[in-house]
Amino acid sequence: MFKFSTAILLLAGSSLLSVATPLALMADEAVTKLRVEPLNWWAGMKNPQLQLMVHGQSIADSKVSIEAKQIKVLGVQHSDNKNYLFIDLDTTNAPAQAFSITLTNIDGSKHTLAYQLKAREPGSKQRQGFSNKDAIYLITPDRFANGDPNNDNHPKMLELANRADKDGRHGGDIKGMIDNLDYLEDLGVTQLWINPLTENNQAQYSYHGYSVTDHYQIDPRYGTNEDYRQLSQRARDKGIGIIADVVVNHIGSNHWWMADLPSKDWVNYQPNDHSANKQIGFTSHRRTTVQDPYAVSSDTLAFTDGWFVDTMPDLNQRNPLLATYLIQNSLWWIEHAGLSGIREDTYSYADKGFLIKWAKAIMDEYPNFNIVGEEWTANPITVSYWQKGKHNQDGYQSELPSLMDFPLYETLISALNEPEGWDTGFIKLYEFLGNDVVYADPTQLVLFEGNHDTNRLYSLLGDDIALTQMAMAYVLTSNRIPQLFYGTEILMQSPTKDRNDGAVRADMPGGWQDDAISAFDGKGLIQSQSAMQQFTKRLLNYRRTSAAIIDGGLRHLVPQDGVYLQVRCEDKACAKGASLLVIYNKNETSTEVDLARLGELVNTSATGYNIITQAPQPLDQAIVLAGKGVTLIDLTGKR
Amino acid sequence: MFKFSTAILLLAGSSLLSVATPLALMADEAVTKLRVEPLNWWAGMKNPQLQLMVHGQSIADSKVSIEAKQIKVLGVQHSDNKNYLFIDLDTTNAPAQAFSITLTNIDGSKHTLAYQLKAREPGSKQRQGFSNKDAIYLITPDRFANGDPNNDNHPKMLELANRADKDGRHGGDIKGMIDNLDYLEDLGVTQLWINPLTENNQAQYSYHGYSVTDHYQIDPRYGTNEDYRQLSQRARDKGIGIIADVVVNHIGSNHWWMADLPSKDWVNYQPNDHSANKQIGFTSHRRTTVQDPYAVSSDTLAFTDGWFVDTMPDLNQRNPLLATYLIQNSLWWIEHAGLSGIREDTYSYADKGFLIKWAKAIMDEYPNFNIVGEEWTANPITVSYWQKGKHNQDGYQSELPSLMDFPLYETLISALNEPEGWDTGFIKLYEFLGNDVVYADPTQLVLFEGNHDTNRLYSLLGDDIALTQMAMAYVLTSNRIPQLFYGTEILMQSPTKDRNDGAVRADMPGGWQDDAISAFDGKGLIQSQSAMQQFTKRLLNYRRTSAAIIDGGLRHLVPQDGVYLQVRCEDKACAKGASLLVIYNKNETSTEVDLARLGELVNTSATGYNIITQAPQPLDQAIVLAGKGVTLIDLTGKR
Repeated sequence: MFKFSTAILLLAGSSLLSVATPLALMADEAVTKLRVEPLNWWAGMKNPQLQLMVHGQSIADSKVSIEAKQIKVLGVQHSDNKNYLFIDLDTTNAPAQAFSITLTNIDGSKHTLAYQLKAREPGSKQRQGFSNKDAIYLITPDRFANGDPNNDNHPKMLELANRADKDGRHGGDIKGMIDNLDYLEDLGVTQLWINPLTENNQAQYSYHGYSVTDHYQIDPRYGTNEDYRQLSQRARDKGIGIIADVVVNHIGSNHWWMADLPSKDWVNYQPNDHSANKQIGFTSHRRTTVQDPYAVSSDTLAFTDGWFVDTMPDLNQRNPLLATYLIQNSLWWIEHAGLSGIREDTYSYADKGFLIKWAKAIMDEYPNFNIVGEEWTANPITVSYWQKGKHNQDGYQSELPSLMDFPLYETLISALNEPEGWDTGFIKLYEFLGNDVVYADPTQLVLFEGNHDTNRLYSLLGDDIALTQMAMAYVLTSNRIPQLFYGTEILMQSPTKDRNDGAVRADMPGGWQDDAISAFDGKGLIQSQSAMQQFTKRLLNYRRTSAAIIDGGLRHLVPQDGVYLQVRCEDKACAKGASLLVIYNKNETSTEVDLARLGELVNTSATGYNIITQAPQPLDQAIVLAGKGVTLIDLTGKR
Repeated sequence: MFKFSTAILLLAGSSLLSVATPLALMADEAVTKLRVEPLNWWAGMKNPQLQLMVHGQSIADSKVSIEAKQIKVLGVQHSDNKNYLFIDLDTTNAPAQAFSITLTNIDGSKHTLAYQLKAREPGSKQRQGFSNKDAIYLITPDRFANGDPNNDNHPKMLELANRADKDGRHGGDIKGMIDNLDYLEDLGVTQLWINPLTENNQAQYSYHGYSVTDHYQIDPRYGTNEDYRQLSQRARDKGIGIIADVVVNHIGSNHWWMADLPSKDWVNYQPNDHSANKQIGFTSHRRTTVQDPYAVSSDTLAFTDGWFVDTMPDLNQRNPLLATYLIQNSLWWIEHAGLSGIREDTYSYADKGFLIKWAKAIMDEYPNFNIVGEEWTANPITVSYWQKGKHNQDGYQSELPSLMDFPLYETLISALNEPEGWDTGFIKLYEFLGNDVVYADPTQLVLFEGNHDTNRLYSLLGDDIALTQMAMAYVLTSNRIPQLFYGTEILMQSPTKDRNDGAVRADMPGGWQDDAISAFDGKGLIQSQSAMQQFTKRLLNYRRTSAAIIDGGLRHLVPQDGVYLQVRCEDKACAKGASLLVIYNKNETSTEVDLARLGELVNTSATGYNIITQAPQPLDQAIVLAGKGVTLIDLTGKR
């Protein structure tokens, strides 16, 4: 239990920090810490309201007063736990400043909290979120590069590093990412989506990051809040943005809240809520229940309110204090670290009303920002429900700009793997794209070749480099925002049946001292790995300046005889012809592609060139494909 | 080639009929026939315009005059074939009447055509089309009952009856259907969809009816146009409507047009159009090409303009004269035979602009009518495109009220066949229903348990009567318009791999003299057949008066442990509780279903009853299921 006489505050960008002599010291009480979150705030936010959560022994009884310039206390709110106090402030027109908040207990004892309204970075509001111009690169930070072996373990963190354990912590960190920004820039990626970096002080299996135990601290095994900001600044200098991985659905079972829950309804199926005779339930994972017009509410709640696993308590975002906490936490990290985007985990598992508020609050504050939600289903109808602009039949109108395109990803993998037939192979991919009509804007979806939850692309495609290059080309030339998973560029492998998280999230070769192989400098890579890396780099760098790929039109032809053609045009209507031709070919032997089927889309008097080999390609004759693989031809006649 | 001196007209409800002494008889020309279509028209149609197609040697040069009350010749139109003349009449305010049209040739010779504007049946315009109140029963007329063995062959019809040939004509006819209306009434069906009855004078494989050779004649092997009207009237007396099977996409290669095509653009890929250097192309069957925002026009045309098979030339409905012909032909049969609906074949294969005009013309003329289109795909997005009320992203707005629900049918079969698992079995059916949100109105779709193109339900479900009854119950209690295929009620069988049209469309037992087995009087049916027949009858007759099934709400529960529950309520929102509980159970051993999961949907103080066994069912206790099968419980406490 918490007691207070010496207040210990958590301040922005720091670890635990002892501050300010308490105005009244009660000698008979143990020194303990007083928490205030958010750790700080900023002057000039569009939404001037700020709600502080204060946690301390019987703090709810305190009177609140502040000494600050143009900051008003709008009021205080209480939960059913006397150890929490929620202070509503109005910062309208308030300048950046340090100020103090005084809490006066019923016994007259006082605590003064030092708090800070910081100045925002110039252009903060107008920051550009990730977009179709970008290529996102997903990093599992524990597994990418260990820049600082000294922080592999931390005295306050329960789980110790053990690189021999596929499910253990391996020591990757923020410094490892900073050290390899040159590699990423050279590869051609422009955004890093990093699996959660916030503290996950779980006893075991904590490396993945989805069991947050402190919403306001970078896990010390990755570095500090300041290190994170450094990463973002250094990346930005190279034209690379940072996308944070946010979880609003659940927390880790060692979250500090769990020792003293802010309210009886803070967590669904509270383990200590015996009065309600509730048993802990696990989510049904039946995601259609929140959209299905025929579902019953008990089924819907069984999906949204159940725990993800027994180490991940499920948050009740219907509680307005919690909703505000989560919204402010997202805004805090954006502002603190200069983020260019958020990837929101297990999107549909959270309360759907809250999700609107959360996304809207962020997008209102940063109109050009971007957020992509994870809705893991093969059904585009289900995914489309969550995208802003979709007018759902039940009246639900999301504020989420983007979703992960799981349906197209899954179709891509199966279409490439299947033998070509009347209704198998490329035709599935061709026909599936027609489903784009269900989306408010399919171009704003994020299409990926894999992520930390999927088996490795190269393995899923039977260790076939031709198919792997097809998948990579498809993702990078699609009318989507593309996302790669670290290591695909060097053909990292995994088992292919069921889940293999530890193997999928294997260490990036070269990220640890004395690694015999290095993706970063090419040491020890075999020829196929180097070829894939080079292919990816060429394509990523072509993509950066291709208006046709970034926001142009798309046309494709019904696949025939194992060949599937897509073109991208600079204009949406493809009235001015195509700039890029992508030929997907599954034939092992030499095959000719007659460009006549493309009609006026191709200016046959021009000479194109192969984007990968750089070889010229006359367009007034059939294109000869040597064998299985993808051929990318720039059709503009310009280099 | 046609010549004329004695005119032979085709009149409504008759076969070929020689009429009127020609005013001028040219002795040196052979006697031939002059065609006028439609065969007649009606006074008081909402659209007063009528276009007559007149076909005869060099008829295009004729001057047209009429003697009629309040009928004006608006003008004449010509095609590029001199043997066709199209006369546009305005019948505004014209009374029913017989009148004459005089065609004066350039040589002064004249032909007077007797034509008739008939009086409409009372209430014709307001006729009620098939609806959710109905259960549709599909009959393949050659295979249902041979009421008149004398018409099995006809001197002008090329193909002779051969019951030994599964692909031959077996002799079923209109009289056979009339003779068995009592059976159908007793079974409880209220609409008959009959595969096309129009003349199919093809040399072989003509029994299916989809190769029309004369748009205005019932095939004489089925009976006459008057017999068809008799069927409709007799059926209507029993509360049964008739749904015609219409094909606007293609014709039979022996259609009379093919000997003298009305224009060079009447048929796509005309076999005699050498000048355009066209080859006959077959449809690609790639139906997404007419919806896909990324498709190229050459792919779209390869779908819509190709021939279905080499005996089915593809009509070019973009030709406005043909469009009017097809629209009038549909109206003619509705008015002539007193139809309550149309099922339109190969819907998306026709020109999509024409389809709007065709459906709108019919629905404008008969506002309460109904039309269901066939779009054979498992993808609900593709189907939804064609339903009236859907605001498609490309701006296409269909006028078609209903579509066959192939996606739900296919899901139903696979869900029943699959073992129950995390993502197999009932859960597929449960989750699929959530896709209803893509439809403008899913309740207006026609859900079927099988049709003439699918393998037999009982066989597809592994000759498992429990699964077959589940499928039947699902179709008949769904929030859809249900459709059965003749013979499913007695468990007719077929092979299950690939297509088996001849076997699927086997003769209904008892439809032929001396049949050892009869579905109609039960003679020789084995116990399982009688049980299925009784099950179907009970359910069909319960359905007729169930407001909950007909237009009430639907709720369903996430399947658990091999049990899937659906309820239907009288109110759409299910706020007043459920009237019907349907329990689908795949467990072979005794299983209890706790109604607590249904919460307030069930009034547990009432006593329900089993709709099939009529046994009472207390609702304050668990329902014990003896084994695999469907259990239907009326929950209202009333009988």
